[in-house]
Amino acid sequence: MRKQTYKIEDVYINSVFSSVGKKEAEGPLGEYFDAKYTDDMLGQSSWEMAESTLMKNTVSGALTSAGKTPDEIDMILAGDLLNQCTASSYGLKELGIPYLGLYGACSTFVEGLCLGSMLLSGGFANNIAIGASSHFCSSQKQYRFPLEYGEVRTPTSQWTVTGSGSAVLNKEKGFAKVSEVTIGKMVDLGITDANNMGAAMAPSAADTIYTHFKETGKTPEDYDLVITGDLAWVGSDILLELLRDKGLDLHNHTDCGKIIFDKNKQGVKSGGSGCGCVASVFSGFFAKKLKENEIQKVLLLGTGALMSPTGVLVGESIAGVAHAVAIERVDA
Amino acid sequence: MRKQTYKIEDVYINSVFSSVGKKEAEGPLGEYFDAKYTDDMLGQSSWEMAESTLMKNTVSGALTSAGKTPDEIDMILAGDLLNQCTASSYGLKELGIPYLGLYGACSTFVEGLCLGSMLLSGGFANNIAIGASSHFCSSQKQYRFPLEYGEVRTPTSQWTVTGSGSAVLNKEKGFAKVSEVTIGKMVDLGITDANNMGAAMAPSAADTIYTHFKETGKTPEDYDLVITGDLAWVGSDILLELLRDKGLDLHNHTDCGKIIFDKNKQGVKSGGSGCGCVASVFSGFFAKKLKENEIQKVLLLGTGALMSPTGVLVGESIAGVAHAVAIERVDA
Repeated sequence: MRKQTYKIEDVYINSVFSSVGKKEAEGPLGEYFDAKYTDDMLGQSSWEMAESTLMKNTVSGALTSAGKTPDEIDMILAGDLLNQCTASSYGLKELGIPYLGLYGACSTFVEGLCLGSMLLSGGFANNIAIGASSHFCSSQKQYRFPLEYGEVRTPTSQWTVTGSGSAVLNKEKGFAKVSEVTIGKMVDLGITDANNMGAAMAPSAADTIYTHFKETGKTPEDYDLVITGDLAWVGSDILLELLRDKGLDLHNHTDCGKIIFDKNKQGVKSGGSGCGCVASVFSGFFAKKLKENEIQKVLLLGTGALMSPTGVLVGESIAGVAHAVAIERVDA
Repeated sequence: MRKQTYKIEDVYINSVFSSVGKKEAEGPLGEYFDAKYTDDMLGQSSWEMAESTLMKNTVSGALTSAGKTPDEIDMILAGDLLNQCTASSYGLKELGIPYLGLYGACSTFVEGLCLGSMLLSGGFANNIAIGASSHFCSSQKQYRFPLEYGEVRTPTSQWTVTGSGSAVLNKEKGFAKVSEVTIGKMVDLGITDANNMGAAMAPSAADTIYTHFKETGKTPEDYDLVITGDLAWVGSDILLELLRDKGLDLHNHTDCGKIIFDKNKQGVKSGGSGCGCVASVFSGFFAKKLKENEIQKVLLLGTGALMSPTGVLVGESIAGVAHAVAIERVDA
């Protein structure tokens, strides 16, 4: 019988770094982010280059926090939403780190944590960096409408986070360790609306969470929090309902897309999304809560809507995928 | 000192499968491919869905050859060139295999072989599938001009292969084993022409090949062939020159992009390219040569041009990346 969950031995999250744009800095978690940019162009001439700069600065921040130079990093696992993973390749090429590009839509940061943890646990590499980013303006242009069009947002739509998160994993030491990873399957329940990504992602998140508990014999009580990436308000409700149908009451669930913005004051409709959502909220907010001993054990899920701009235009449905990583605080 | 090369223990290539379109089937390697489609639409209503079908059928072919059902595959590592990895997610979602999406441009197939080999060697998973694809029509539309425009091809331009390759790796048995992998760095020497990808990729291929020999103490004589993915004619010449400058005479080099088409008769200018080039040529041609004992040891490189359609339009340069996998024949 195939198992999707793997035990991880002696892999630590050595450092994290988070960067966000102006709107995210003004949100409820603003004080927790490490770098805040008031200029969403980051001094560049295009949104794509702005996002590349965001990625570069964020990964550089995580390396600095880990006390590592780029030459000490054995490989970097990174990805973003741009055609084709532009922010990662343009942002990271100068660092000269062996590069493995990922594409898991908004699940990319956790996909990187899962792969990096398995590689380190398996005896490969000493230091692995993870990076993921998204940018509201580059994403709108690519996946929906140009900003100038002044699109009216639907109630289920999500606001792509301008943000990036990066982590350095190694076997030396860190504020937390990775104990298990669960690799998710794609699940497609037929959602065709690019403005309802929460609904497209929720079934895969439910599948991965259910599988994680079934395979490990754990219950939600074994974690202080089960954190999903960017299901936001609409998708989170669907997730909880799908899990209740399977007999699982996820009473300690939270979602990065729900907490990064103020739903009532910031006009984000269903909440935040994008590779940078879970990446910046975990690296900025939850990592600090782990360090400060406010939480000890979390199950973190990256949730991705594997949509294609072309596919959506021709009415194809959007599959979701979600990967999970179990993270435990390490006493300083 | 960072090393980019890792030893792999007991990882076998259990099965491979290759699929190509009409033009590739008419080329010099036509007889070696496992599936040949005379209709480049594969009965679908769009090129994107045609490529998705190509990926699905190819992975299914590799699973069948391995005698495995999708439920017996622990994870699949796959990617393609479409915004955003459309062929992989749309093509593979029905199979229900835990999915880790990759993006390494045309290096994706070998990136998958490297990652899959490390995961298996590290004790994770029993069976891992790898998949990669490209399609001439979907790629032209996305990266260059719509076919209807009737673009005049430049001498350095490459013809994107309509093709796909898939492999099943495991620790049981196989026709070949993976002995080492070398993870490459991005290298950017300032090429800005989307019709000169060979030149954009050659420096990274040279860097990875040079690093592989330096770190392992091997010489080109330790391999029957050093096979690059899709540098094609222009890029291959640059590669050999770059390596000669470093004192390395790569006398046993060949390139999938050079041999898949007949340069004189098929009007492909510099040769073939695309994720499907190295994937189909290795899975279709070189795998059979290994099985038949015509070759015993090869170093296989995937070479990717990490270009962004937006980046190219605004004059940004194109970085290359190349990963290498050392493959040895196993006696039946």
